[in-house]
Amino acid sequence: MNKKIYFSSKDISNRMVARLTEYLRILKEENKTKKTLNSIDLAEKMNSTAAQVRKDLSTFGEFGTRGKGYSIAELIKIIESILGVDEENQLILVGCGKMGSMIASNTDVLGKNFKLVAVFDKDKEKIGKKIDYTDLEIKSIKELKTVVKETEITQAILAVNKEVAQKVTDILLENGIKAILNLTASRLEVPSEICVVDVDISAKLQELNFWRRHVYLKNLD
Amino acid sequence: MNKKIYFSSKDISNRMVARLTEYLRILKEENKTKKTLNSIDLAEKMNSTAAQVRKDLSTFGEFGTRGKGYSIAELIKIIESILGVDEENQLILVGCGKMGSMIASNTDVLGKNFKLVAVFDKDKEKIGKKIDYTDLEIKSIKELKTVVKETEITQAILAVNKEVAQKVTDILLENGIKAILNLTASRLEVPSEICVVDVDISAKLQELNFWRRHVYLKNLD
Repeated sequence: MNKKIYFSSKDISNRMVARLTEYLRILKEENKTKKTLNSIDLAEKMNSTAAQVRKDLSTFGEFGTRGKGYSIAELIKIIESILGVDEENQLILVGCGKMGSMIASNTDVLGKNFKLVAVFDKDKEKIGKKIDYTDLEIKSIKELKTVVKETEITQAILAVNKEVAQKVTDILLENGIKAILNLTASRLEVPSEICVVDVDISAKLQELNFWRRHVYLKNLD
Repeated sequence: MNKKIYFSSKDISNRMVARLTEYLRILKEENKTKKTLNSIDLAEKMNSTAAQVRKDLSTFGEFGTRGKGYSIAELIKIIESILGVDEENQLILVGCGKMGSMIASNTDVLGKNFKLVAVFDKDKEKIGKKIDYTDLEIKSIKELKTVVKETEITQAILAVNKEVAQKVTDILLENGIKAILNLTASRLEVPSEICVVDVDISAKLQELNFWRRHVYLKNLD
């Protein structure tokens, strides 16, 4: 890739990063049948405007050719590079209840270039058992320190009961974890240099329920 | 409740509805130990400003007493009413793979006042089997029409393989479903009067991965 990727903090918001994941998903889908895509078509898929698409993508450099649109393959490479998913990212999972086991045994959920290398639980009945369809053996949370030190992994998925979410988070941070995908319905208190992204299915269901009941509001603007 | 709840379409955005779910979560947590909460403390929990909190809550009426703050119990009732989670909301689930089974057997994931009343799959090996820890028996997708008609349910959770997500969505809409919580990594094409909320764990993991790699951007503003 000979084009420069650059961006500054002012250009990047949480919503911008979320849009990047959506661009990537769309581009991979389009890549199955097309070689180029213009900003109008990309905007339609994004439920956005061509101006917004051009603004978003210009944040990272000069891409696309006037009249021809964006090279899909090139744009995929660029966005994968920005998101850091152009290479394998290892992570650990803590909590092998229903949610945790589902994710550990179903790595499609994580997507390309994310790899679970260790799973932990505090339940003695679970420790030592294999996760179905994988080579992962459930380890005691007491082994966390050694594993994090050996593997230098800094990213974790948290799938424990919400009642212990903060306590387990504190243990993760003490042991060198810097980024947490939080699948619990609890919000985590962490220092500002720690990254947390929440996935809360029950909150999303409440949102859906609102829109279902107030669908007349949906298309008024 | 003698205070009026009102709002117009101009006041309500997707982000506003998402914030309401977050207010509700915080208020329920605070309700365990307190009776009132002022906008400053609520803002701190929301990672927001007191002005934003007052603006958000004033969208729905005149709540709170100067100097005393908001009555937590009252505000919970109001927000539950707005989100429609002050009464039971029934829904169906389509797709009993790993993700679907996890949700069906672990109804805590759905939260208060959401109840799964039927689960569907197309796999003959699964049809007729019970979901663990529940009374739910997996039905054939062919029975969808009858169930939706009998129960008048309009809300569904979609947990099928992403390759068939659109096809199954079309079947859901033909049979009267109006709102879908989409747990697949596919985006659904639906008419404008249909509500869809996506929960995409792999996209959230990509976001986390970005922030982990660019943590220096996180606190510059």
